[in-house]
Amino acid sequence: MASGEVVTAGEAGTGFPIQSISKVFALDMALSSEGDELFKRVGREPSGDSFNSIIDLERTSGLPRNPFVNAGALVVVDILVEKLADDWQASAVAEEIRERAGLARIGADDDVLASEHEGGDLNRAMMSFMRHHGNLHSDPDEVMEAYVHQCAIVLDCCGLAKAGIPFSRTRRSPDDEAADARARRRRRVLALMMTCGHYDGSGDFAMRVGLPAKSGVGGGILAIVPDVASIAVWSPNLDQHGNSILGVRALEMLCDRTGWSVFGPPLVSAAA
Amino acid sequence: MASGEVVTAGEAGTGFPIQSISKVFALDMALSSEGDELFKRVGREPSGDSFNSIIDLERTSGLPRNPFVNAGALVVVDILVEKLADDWQASAVAEEIRERAGLARIGADDDVLASEHEGGDLNRAMMSFMRHHGNLHSDPDEVMEAYVHQCAIVLDCCGLAKAGIPFSRTRRSPDDEAADARARRRRRVLALMMTCGHYDGSGDFAMRVGLPAKSGVGGGILAIVPDVASIAVWSPNLDQHGNSILGVRALEMLCDRTGWSVFGPPLVSAAA
Amino acid sequence: MASGEVVTAGEAGTGFPIQSISKVFALDMALSSEGDELFKRVGREPSGDSFNSIIDLERTSGLPRNPFVNAGALVVVDILVEKLADDWQASAVAEEIRERAGLARIGADDDVLASEHEGGDLNRAMMSFMRHHGNLHSDPDEVMEAYVHQCAIVLDCCGLAKAGIPFSRTRRSPDDEAADARARRRRRVLALMMTCGHYDGSGDFAMRVGLPAKSGVGGGILAIVPDVASIAVWSPNLDQHGNSILGVRALEMLCDRTGWSVFGPPLVSAAA
Amino acid sequence: MASGEVVTAGEAGTGFPIQSISKVFALDMALSSEGDELFKRVGREPSGDSFNSIIDLERTSGLPRNPFVNAGALVVVDILVEKLADDWQASAVAEEIRERAGLARIGADDDVLASEHEGGDLNRAMMSFMRHHGNLHSDPDEVMEAYVHQCAIVLDCCGLAKAGIPFSRTRRSPDDEAADARARRRRRVLALMMTCGHYDGSGDFAMRVGLPAKSGVGGGILAIVPDVASIAVWSPNLDQHGNSILGVRALEMLCDRTGWSVFGPPLVSAAA
Repeated sequence: MASGEVVTAGEAGTGFPIQSISKVFALDMALSSEGDELFKRVGREPSGDSFNSIIDLERTSGLPRNPFVNAGALVVVDILVEKLADDWQASAVAEEIRERAGLARIGADDDVLASEHEGGDLNRAMMSFMRHHGNLHSDPDEVMEAYVHQCAIVLDCCGLAKAGIPFSRTRRSPDDEAADARARRRRRVLALMMTCGHYDGSGDFAMRVGLPAKSGVGGGILAIVPDVASIAVWSPNLDQHGNSILGVRALEMLCDRTGWSVFGPPLVSAAA
Repeated sequence: MASGEVVTAGEAGTGFPIQSISKVFALDMALSSEGDELFKRVGREPSGDSFNSIIDLERTSGLPRNPFVNAGALVVVDILVEKLADDWQASAVAEEIRERAGLARIGADDDVLASEHEGGDLNRAMMSFMRHHGNLHSDPDEVMEAYVHQCAIVLDCCGLAKAGIPFSRTRRSPDDEAADARARRRRRVLALMMTCGHYDGSGDFAMRVGLPAKSGVGGGILAIVPDVASIAVWSPNLDQHGNSILGVRALEMLCDRTGWSVFGPPLVSAAA
Repeated sequence: MASGEVVTAGEAGTGFPIQSISKVFALDMALSSEGDELFKRVGREPSGDSFNSIIDLERTSGLPRNPFVNAGALVVVDILVEKLADDWQASAVAEEIRERAGLARIGADDDVLASEHEGGDLNRAMMSFMRHHGNLHSDPDEVMEAYVHQCAIVLDCCGLAKAGIPFSRTRRSPDDEAADARARRRRRVLALMMTCGHYDGSGDFAMRVGLPAKSGVGGGILAIVPDVASIAVWSPNLDQHGNSILGVRALEMLCDRTGWSVFGPPLVSAAA
Repeated sequence: MASGEVVTAGEAGTGFPIQSISKVFALDMALSSEGDELFKRVGREPSGDSFNSIIDLERTSGLPRNPFVNAGALVVVDILVEKLADDWQASAVAEEIRERAGLARIGADDDVLASEHEGGDLNRAMMSFMRHHGNLHSDPDEVMEAYVHQCAIVLDCCGLAKAGIPFSRTRRSPDDEAADARARRRRRVLALMMTCGHYDGSGDFAMRVGLPAKSGVGGGILAIVPDVASIAVWSPNLDQHGNSILGVRALEMLCDRTGWSVFGPPLVSAAA
C-alpha cells in the first residue's frame, strides 16, 4: 500500500523465480538511461503472437514488437550492456531489484540458470536474427548470461510487491523536474504493462482485472494500483499464454471487491 | 466534465463522420444485452495486424481478434441484428448515440454511405469468411447496411463528447445492482478501448496519452477520463495506422498539462 | 496411350465428380484465348499454403498464387466469363470436356451442385477479396455458378483419360505455327500441373510419381506422360492435402514399373 | 551432352562461386547415404516464401520446407557431418564436385568465405531455431563452416556442366540393382530441382524452361535434360528471387530452339 502497510495472505514468504517480471525492472533501468531513444530499437505495440514467436521479427525486420516479448527483453538487456559498458555486470538487474525490495541479498534459481541450454536455442535464434538486422550490438553470450540471470531472480510475494512499489508512485511533481520525469517514465512503463504485460492474453487480463501488471512463467504476477498499491501474487499453474491461472483469478477477485481498477475509482469501503 | 461543464476549443461545432468510434457504442449495446456471451464470438486481444486484415481471421478460424477491428465490429452488428430481431433497424446505433448526445436529430455522411461499394468488398469478404466458420448468422446485406449506417453517423466534437459521457461514469454502486453492473460493463469497454482502441497503434497511444480512447478514420477520437471527463477531438489527417495525427497530439498535450492518465492521479492544479 | 489404345483396370467405368481436375481444362481454354496475359491476373508459383487459404491473397494483394488454388481457378473462370461474354454459359467447360472425351453427353453431380451453400462462403470470401483488389470483373454469382458447375462434372476414368489426351500431345511442329503454339501451351499447362497440381503436396507427388498431374477432392487424378499417355485413376480416400491416397500410390507403382517419368526415359520393356 | 560432346559459348571458362547450386550435390550425397530417412528432417515441398525466410520454420516447428531453402541445406550438411563423423571434413562436398567435374583441383571464393559474418547471423538464427526443435545435431559452427565452404566453390560453366552430368544419367537399369537405385535417386533429385530449384520463382522457371535446374546467387544455373545433357549458364545479374536474369533467358531460348523440355520430346532437327 502507498501507506507503507504490508498485507499478506497464503504463502507470501515462499520464493519463486520471477522470470519475465524482471523485464519490467530492466525496462525501467534502460528507459531511465536511454529515454525514448529506446523505442528506436524495440516497439511498444501488443503482439498478436506468442511471447517467443520469431515470425513477428521477420515481419518487422528485426524490431521486436515490445519490451516484454522475449526478443524485446533481449534488446533491453543489450542496451543495458552497451550503456553500462565497463560498469556492466550480469547481476545489474538483480542488484536493482534487491535494493528496491530492501533486501540484504537476493537469490537465483538453479533450474532457471541451468535452463539456458534448453530455452537457450530459441533465444539465440532471435538474437542472431536481430544481429542480422543490426539490432543486437553486444556479444550474444554476454546478453544471454545477463538475461538468464535476471529471469532466475528469486523473490517471495512480499519481496516482489515491495520491489514494485516505485512503479505505483506516479504522482506528478510539477516543482521537481527529476521527480516529475520519473513519474512520467513510470506511467509509460505502466501503459506498456497494461497493453503488453500478459503476452497474447493482455486484452483479457485488462478486461478482467483492469490493472497494469506483468506475469512470469514462474507463476508470479506483479500488479500496480497507481498511487495506491503494489500487489504480488503467485501460483505455478499456467494457462496457454503462460500466465498464472489462479494468480489472475485472485487479482480479478481482489479488484472486484476493492473496486481497484484504473478504469474507475475504488469502492469507498475498500479505500477506507 | 463529470461536473456537467462543457469546455470547447477550435471547430468544436463542425460535424464529421465518427466512423469506427461508433463501434464503441455498438459494443456497449451488444454487451448490455448479451453479457460475456459476446466473447464467444469475438476476441478481446489486440491484434498485431491492420484493422482490415483478413489473415488474422484465417489463423483464428473466423473469430475476430477484438470488437474494434472491422471483422469484430461486423460480428457485433450481427449480434445486434439477431438480438433485436423484429425490432431491429439499421439506425439502431445512431438512435442510441443521438439519445446519449441529447440531440433532436442526428445526420449521416453521404460519402460514407456511398462508400459501401469501395470498402464494401473487403468487408463482404470478411463476412463470407466468418459465415463459412459459422460466425455470422444474419443476412450479410443487412449487416452491411447497418454497419455502413453506423460508420456514417455525423457528430461534432461537442456531440461526440456528450455521447461519451456515460462511458466516464464507472463509479461502482454496491447498493444498486443494475447500476453496479453498468459500471462494471463500462470498465470492460474502457479496457478494450485501452488495449485495442487504436488498431496497431494502441500501444503507442496508451504510452503517450494514457487514456482509454477510440479513433475513427474520419479523424475523430473519443477519450475517456474515468469518473472525470469525456473528451472528443477531431482533425482529419491520419497516420499510417488510421489515427488522427493532430488529434493524438492534442490529447497528449492536454493530458500532459492536466496530468489526466489512468496511470496516476491528475495534477492538483488541473483538478482545481 | 498415344497409340490410341485404351488400357483399364478396376472400376474404370464408375463415374465421379472431377472437381479440381476441371481447373486444368478451364486453364487450357483461358490460356488459348488470353495467352500469357492471363498471368497478369493469376500467379504461377506453388503456394506453401492450403488450396483454400485466404492468407496468400492478402500477402499478394489479391493475386492468387496459381490457377489451381481455388482463388486462382475462380479468376480463370472470371476470365472465361469476360472473354466469351454473350457466348458464355456456365456449361462451357463441361462442353469442352465432353468434346475432348468424345462423349455424347456429360453428367453433373447433384451433391456438388448443392454444395455451393457450404463451401460457397469461403469461395465468396475470396471473390469479394479479389474484387476489392480489382481482380474479379464479372458478377460473383455468375462466376460461382460456373465454378460449381465445372467442379460437378462427372466422368469415369475412361472418360477422364480420354479428355486428357490432348495434354499428352506436346510434340512441337516447327512447320505448323498453330499446332506448335498449341504444343507449347500444353507444355506450360503440364509445367503448372507439375509444380502446383497437388496443392501443398505437389513436391511429394513430383518426387514419388514424376509426372505432371492434377488431383480433385472427388478422389480422381489425371496424370500425363508427355507424348505417350494420359492416365486417370480414382479412389475416394484423401490425404491431408486433399489428394487421393490410393490414387497417388497406384500412379507411383505404375510409374515405377513402366519407368514412366518426365525425369528419364521409360523402361524398355514397358515401351515394348 | 550424353554423347560426351562439350558445347560452349561466351565466357565458359570464367569461374564463379556456385553458391546454392552446391546444395544439389550435397543433397545427392546425403540421399545416397541416408535414403528417404532424410525426409524426416527436411520437407520436399516448394515454399511460398523467400529462400531465407524463418517464418516457414516456425510454422513447421523447425522442419525446413525443402533441401534448397537455406534452412534445409543446413540440415543436409548437418546430416553429412553426423553420417561421416570422423571422416567428415568441411571440404567433402567440394571434393565430390571436383571428382565429378574431373578436375585436378577446385577453388573457393574468398568473398564468399568472408561473408560468413554478414549472412552468417541469419543462418545462425535458423540453426539455433532448428536446434531448439531438435533438428540440428552437430555443432553449429562446424555446420556453418561446411556450408560456407560449399557455397564458395568456384567453377566455370564447363566444370559445372561436367559435374552435373551424373544427374542426367537417369536411365533405369532393371538388371543392375545399384545402378537402378542410383537412377531412381537422381530422378528424385531432379523432381526436387523442378519444384523447388528456383525458390519462389520455381513455377515460373518450370513454365518458361521446362527443365529441372538449380540456381545460385553467384549467377549460375545448372539445368539437366534427362538422358540427354547437363547445361550450365552464368550471368551475375539477379532477379528479385535471386535467380540469374540472363541465365534464365538463355535457357528459355535454348530450350525453345531445341525443344528440350521434360514436358515433350525434343525437336527433330535439334536431335539430329
